Amino acid sequence: MTRTEQAIADQDTLAALGEFGLIAELSAALPPAPKTLVGIGDDAAVLAAPDGRVVATTDFLLEGRHFRRDWSGPSDVGRKAAARSLIDVAAMGAVPTGLLVALAAPGDLPVSWALGLAEGLAAECARVGASVVGGDTARASSVLLAVTGLGDLRGRAPVLRSGAAPGDVVAVAGPLGRAAAGLALLSAGLLDDPLAAAHRRPQPPYDAGPEAADLGATAMIDISDGLLADLGHIADASGVLIDVSAAAVAPGDVLLAAARRHDLFDRTDRGSSPGHPDALAWVLTGGEDHALAATFPASVALPPRWSVIGRVLAGQGVLVDGRPWAGPAGWDHFGAP
Amino acid sequence: MTRTEQAIADQDTLAALGEFGLIAELSAALPPAPKTLVGIGDDAAVLAAPDGRVVATTDFLLEGRHFRRDWSGPSDVGRKAAARSLIDVAAMGAVPTGLLVALAAPGDLPVSWALGLAEGLAAECARVGASVVGGDTARASSVLLAVTGLGDLRGRAPVLRSGAAPGDVVAVAGPLGRAAAGLALLSAGLLDDPLAAAHRRPQPPYDAGPEAADLGATAMIDISDGLLADLGHIADASGVLIDVSAAAVAPGDVLLAAARRHDLFDRTDRGSSPGHPDALAWVLTGGEDHALAATFPASVALPPRWSVIGRVLAGQGVLVDGRPWAGPAGWDHFGAP
Repeated sequence: MTRTEQAIADQDTLAALGEFGLIAELSAALPPAPKTLVGIGDDAAVLAAPDGRVVATTDFLLEGRHFRRDWSGPSDVGRKAAARSLIDVAAMGAVPTGLLVALAAPGDLPVSWALGLAEGLAAECARVGASVVGGDTARASSVLLAVTGLGDLRGRAPVLRSGAAPGDVVAVAGPLGRAAAGLALLSAGLLDDPLAAAHRRPQPPYDAGPEAADLGATAMIDISDGLLADLGHIADASGVLIDVSAAAVAPGDVLLAAARRHDLFDRTDRGSSPGHPDALAWVLTGGEDHALAATFPASVALPPRWSVIGRVLAGQGVLVDGRPWAGPAGWDHFGAP
Repeated sequence: MTRTEQAIADQDTLAALGEFGLIAELSAALPPAPKTLVGIGDDAAVLAAPDGRVVATTDFLLEGRHFRRDWSGPSDVGRKAAARSLIDVAAMGAVPTGLLVALAAPGDLPVSWALGLAEGLAAECARVGASVVGGDTARASSVLLAVTGLGDLRGRAPVLRSGAAPGDVVAVAGPLGRAAAGLALLSAGLLDDPLAAAHRRPQPPYDAGPEAADLGATAMIDISDGLLADLGHIADASGVLIDVSAAAVAPGDVLLAAARRHDLFDRTDRGSSPGHPDALAWVLTGGEDHALAATFPASVALPPRWSVIGRVLAGQGVLVDGRPWAGPAGWDHFGAP
C-alpha cells in the first residue's frame, strides 16, 4: 500500500492527518501545469503572464448554499468549484491558467473526501490546460471553498459587460436551465434523475469565451444568476435595452420532459404544488449552468454553437418579447430567504 | 444625506440592502489603483502584470478562528485580512498590486460593518499602492473572508523557501510575539491592553520583502504559524538545519511587561495558571505578526531593520541554541483543538 493509499483509508480524517499532512496529500493529487513557475508549497505561487496582464476572479462555493454533500460527491464539488472561476475568466475572453483554492472543512471530514475534491479540481482544470497553483486550508464547521481563477488574455482586449450597443444581437453558448432543473429534481428527492448531473457537474463552454472575443463580441457575461438577471447586468453596464425572444429560448424536449417528471413526482408524493418551477422559468432564471451570453454586431457570422436569442435596443432593462418577464426574479444572495 | 450615508444607517443590514446593493456600496468604498485595468463589477478583474509573471496567494480569515467581532472592529478585520495576503506576496520578493476579496456574512450583519471592513481593506492596500480589484459575496452564518493577493516581481527572481544553504545567516524584519501576546491578553479579558492592537492590526514590513530579494536573500517566509514552525518550513524545503540564538530572540521590555500584566491578571482574577504563555514562547511560537524571516549569505551587509537571529547549518530541523525547543509546537489548523 502506498503512502497515498494509506492516507485515504476511510477512517482517516483531516484532524488525524493534520494541516501539513493534508497539504502534502493535496499537492500530490494536483499536478502542475506549464504556466506554473512556482506552485503549491511556498508563500505564494508564481504564474506566467506573458500578455503583461492577468485576469483574476474569486468565487465562493459553500456547503448548504451551493452544494450538499448528500447530493454531490467530492469530485463533483471540485469540478463545480473550479468551473465557476474558470468560466468567469473565459467570460472576459481569456484562457484560464491557474486556480488558487481556499478550503475550510470540519476536522472529521474524511481525507478521502478532500482527495476526491482535489481530483475534481484537477480534472476540470485539465479541460482548459490550467492547474491548481496554491491555496489555503482552515478548519470550519462545514465545507467552504473560495476559488480564485487566473487567466491570460493572449493579447485580446477584455470583453466587458459595458460594450453592448443598439443593433447588436444577443447570443448564448452552452446549456440553459439544466442545472436549475437538476436542482429542482434533486430537491424533489429524485437523486438519480439524469438531469441531476447538470446541477452536480455543470459543463461551461470555456473555449467559447476567447472565441467570442475573436469574433468581435461587444459584451459578455457568464450566466450564474440566471439568464434574465445576467443580461440585466449587461443592459445596466452598457446603458441599453435587451429584448429576448421567447421562441428562441423555448425549452427543448429534455427540459420539458424533466418538468413533467418533476410535476408527476409532486402530484404522487406531495400533492399538487402550484408554485413548482416550470421549464421556461428554469431557462430564464436558472443560474449555475455557466453558459456564456454575449452581444455581437449583427454583421458577425456566428458559429453554430452560438444561438441568437435576442437583440440590443436603445433603452434600459430586459424584456421578453417586448414585455417584462412576470416570473421569479434573479437570485440575490442576501435578499433570498 | 447622501446615498452612502443613508445606506450605512445602523439599522440597515446586508439582507435589507441586497447583494447588488452591497456590491455597489463596497465598490464605492474601494478606490481603484494604477495597476487596475478592469476593476470591481465585471466577471473578472484585469491587472497589469508588466513583469510577464504574476505572484498569487489566497488566505482565509474566519470569524471565531482568526478574529472575533467583539475583540476587533470591522476596520481591524479588513486590515488584517489584507495584511495576511499582502505579506505573502512580499515574502516572494514581490510588490503587491491587487486583492480579490470573497466575503460571506450573515444577513443581519450591519451594512456599516461591511463598509468598515472595506475601509480597512482599502487602507491596508494603500500602504503598498495596491487596491481591491474584485471579489464575491455570499450569505453564511458567520463572517468568512478569503483574500487573494496578487503581485509583481518587477524582474526579480522569486525568493523561495528552498534556497537556504549552510553558512547563511537567518534574519528577521518586523516584530515577533506581539500578536500572540495581544491574543493572550485579549483572551484574559484585557480588551484595552496596548498590545491588543498588535493582534487586531498586525504591521507587516511589506517593503522588506523586495528589499530582501535585492539584498540576495536565499530563502524567505512570512511568520504566520510561529517563528520556529516557519523556519521549519525553510529548513525542510532547503534540506538544512537552522539554529536560532536564544539571546538574539530574547523578549524585550514590551513583551516582558505584557507577560507580567498577563500573569498578574491570572493571579488576581483566575488563580495561578501554570500553563499560561510566557514571553519567550510568544516570540518563538506566536504567529500572526507577519514579520519576515529570510536567510542571507553571511557576507551580505544587512540594513538595521534586519536582525540576525540564527544561522544555517548542514542537517535538518530547527534548534534553539543547539537544542530542540521544549515549548509548544507550531499551529496546526486541523490538529489543534
